[in-house]
Amino acid sequence: MSDRLVLDYNNMLSPRLGGRGIDPARLEALADRFAQAHAEVARRRDAGEIGFFQLPYQSEVREQVGNFANGLGQAFGTAVVLGIGGSALGAVALREALVKPHWNELDDDARDYFPRLYVLDNVDPSTLGPFLDRIDLGQALFNVISKSGSTAETMSQFLVVRDRLGRTFDDDGYRRHLVFTTDPEKGVLRRIARDEQIATLPIPPNVGGRFSVLSAVGLLPAALIGIDIDALLAGARDMDERCSSTQLRENPAGLFAVLQYLADTEQRAPMHVMMSYSDRLHGVADWFRQLWAESLGKEKNRAGETVNVGPTPLKAMGATDQHSQVQLYMEGPYDKTITFLTVDQRGEDLEVPKAYEDMPELAYLGGHTMGELLSAERQATARALAHRGRMNMTLRLPRVDAGGIGQLLMMLQIATVYAGELYGVDPLDQPGVELGKQLTYGLMGRPGYQAEAGEAPDPHWMSE
Amino acid sequence: MSDRLVLDYNNMLSPRLGGRGIDPARLEALADRFAQAHAEVARRRDAGEIGFFQLPYQSEVREQVGNFANGLGQAFGTAVVLGIGGSALGAVALREALVKPHWNELDDDARDYFPRLYVLDNVDPSTLGPFLDRIDLGQALFNVISKSGSTAETMSQFLVVRDRLGRTFDDDGYRRHLVFTTDPEKGVLRRIARDEQIATLPIPPNVGGRFSVLSAVGLLPAALIGIDIDALLAGARDMDERCSSTQLRENPAGLFAVLQYLADTEQRAPMHVMMSYSDRLHGVADWFRQLWAESLGKEKNRAGETVNVGPTPLKAMGATDQHSQVQLYMEGPYDKTITFLTVDQRGEDLEVPKAYEDMPELAYLGGHTMGELLSAERQATARALAHRGRMNMTLRLPRVDAGGIGQLLMMLQIATVYAGELYGVDPLDQPGVELGKQLTYGLMGRPGYQAEAGEAPDPHWMSE
Repeated sequence: MSDRLVLDYNNMLSPRLGGRGIDPARLEALADRFAQAHAEVARRRDAGEIGFFQLPYQSEVREQVGNFANGLGQAFGTAVVLGIGGSALGAVALREALVKPHWNELDDDARDYFPRLYVLDNVDPSTLGPFLDRIDLGQALFNVISKSGSTAETMSQFLVVRDRLGRTFDDDGYRRHLVFTTDPEKGVLRRIARDEQIATLPIPPNVGGRFSVLSAVGLLPAALIGIDIDALLAGARDMDERCSSTQLRENPAGLFAVLQYLADTEQRAPMHVMMSYSDRLHGVADWFRQLWAESLGKEKNRAGETVNVGPTPLKAMGATDQHSQVQLYMEGPYDKTITFLTVDQRGEDLEVPKAYEDMPELAYLGGHTMGELLSAERQATARALAHRGRMNMTLRLPRVDAGGIGQLLMMLQIATVYAGELYGVDPLDQPGVELGKQLTYGLMGRPGYQAEAGEAPDPHWMSE
Repeated sequence: MSDRLVLDYNNMLSPRLGGRGIDPARLEALADRFAQAHAEVARRRDAGEIGFFQLPYQSEVREQVGNFANGLGQAFGTAVVLGIGGSALGAVALREALVKPHWNELDDDARDYFPRLYVLDNVDPSTLGPFLDRIDLGQALFNVISKSGSTAETMSQFLVVRDRLGRTFDDDGYRRHLVFTTDPEKGVLRRIARDEQIATLPIPPNVGGRFSVLSAVGLLPAALIGIDIDALLAGARDMDERCSSTQLRENPAGLFAVLQYLADTEQRAPMHVMMSYSDRLHGVADWFRQLWAESLGKEKNRAGETVNVGPTPLKAMGATDQHSQVQLYMEGPYDKTITFLTVDQRGEDLEVPKAYEDMPELAYLGGHTMGELLSAERQATARALAHRGRMNMTLRLPRVDAGGIGQLLMMLQIATVYAGELYGVDPLDQPGVELGKQLTYGLMGRPGYQAEAGEAPDPHWMSE
């Protein structure tokens, strides 16, 4: 396929960085370890432990999603996702990338009569209450997304929404405003769906929240607003095929994982910035933030030893953050890598008119396009970083379209499981959030849970 | 005053962290250095080098802003800031915190007939073009904000907007849709304003972009949408007064600065997360990200020695990021501090109805409010982090109102200049962005500039 995503990693390597950065020989030296990681990932995939690899090939779910979106889904002017974390970030990334900007502010005509799509990923009452008061319930479809069915934030939202629907519509009527995306067999949401005959879509048991964007979790919201999910899945399949290569230099996910791993463990650069030079790719950077952090940030390695590892992902926006973060990236500690996201063909562009030609501060801008300015700023920032010995690389999409986004999302997911192998941790679990959940249950008075972590009383250190 | 912001830093200190974290004795030991930093900051303030301290006391600008907002400003349904970095982040933070959520989606009545406020802080043509096509130019006021008047992104936007206004209105008519916020004497914007008789507001020469939120830069957008700028400035003055104390334990900005400095330099925790448990404070966390990064990330100290210092600020959202970042915060390297932003009195709240009481996964939620859940989640996360030896502190606002936000913004600005003293760097400059600007000029063909940083040619490392 010709419309391939490209990873340009020249600026990660010492020849461009005046001796700083990763020695190309180290990259070559990791080729064997990468091949082992690749083999172990393939083994876990074949054993059915890593489910996301199969999602682009599952035509049954794709049809269920399409049928729902093209059928009942067409009846609503507002789609609302109730979900958090992996149940929210994928839908936001797809909406930001693949429909018109400021989608929810456009009128019906500008949206081609597809619904608005809101993703409620928090429980702040000062946002949630006014939002529910404002929308027309009769026009609203709520997609409740929780694999376990017991996520406190999402289920609280559900209880509020369920109550309002029950008070607004009759016993039969409220059901058509709900669709659940949850485990195919287990959990409270599944039980309620059975008891009350509510439409559902499945999340495969071997697909964790942060790897679920290409399951019904991401596909249904995307399909509802008219995104071409077939092209999205085709892009993901293309990337999967590319990543079948065990040759590190041919495998973009492998290169990304190995470079970031070497930067963290050998170059003391544990902060991995993803800086998008397209407004439309900012949601992807936010989605990646969960993927990378929750998968790799682990206390124990797979042998059970305490290691406390994990790089920290950051998101940034170009050109905006040149006026916020780039001073630090240029001059602060050598503790970061920057991955630029960029687009070769932007589609629509906007010309800067020639004017004030007697003022040199403005004259050079006239006649260029905004796209050219953005591109020049990215190139200039990358070169300046390299000149200062700062590691950076660029992920170039041919276009921001469903096929390109499918490639990008799949590449980053595959890179994450490779990186799990390199760090020696399980990228699929998240044991560290359990204590917080228990304490929340305790504070909320759920029977059988305590609210204290058991810390000692101590002096009162407060500013007042 | 009783409505004071409180910093609770118990969980930064070793007694709560099982021996990890900062020894209270180290904090006491820094008291003298803090007093020196305080004195040096006071000296620079008195010498007129640090201008932001005076902003809450400048009644003249406050009146100019008020007159404009209450006069001509009332005539518009849409206010648009053209600005980037420090010219944008303050306005966004104030809008997010101090008017109703989803402001720009509300109708005129719900906005009490104050205008929508858009902040265009990037030059992506796929966002900018459709935005300008969509709005009603006749109803739009453009506030062009650039201290130098030569910021490439902002001035490109201005050229596009100026052209459209010129084509839509006659020679006199276009002017009333523009107001410039810029240097009182110098720069291109000032010159254009003089030549074309366009309204302006000043940015004092000794106030840098990231410290300008309480100048006309932040105040005009805030006043246009009905924010009580008098209360905002009063809150800032209250904080300034509190921070007149040279006693570390009485000075909240001093405590914040010293704790973060010790965490970075003695506890190897260079990542400073600001995690808001209020949707309304997320914009403040983003504004702080520029303040902390650009002020402290420096190659040289004030003696001219190469030091490459600076902590990295991150923003996070509670409870949302419990499902994205908290796994890493709990189990990854001990390389972070978490500062929670929270609110004592949320105002409006939302009750979770009792339902499904036979299901323990849901039953405990009913009867609580969303605000209680959010509060429980924050407390549980803070306790769990402390239990795992992870440094965290909590900034508690009494309410999200103009007075509280004024305190918070002022505290963080003062903390930043204290921290500059502790690190030994100048918090007011940003020399590291210069090379990128020069290279951008070169790539855009501005006479006299080169596009290359001078790196050597090298092999082509690409994934294709």
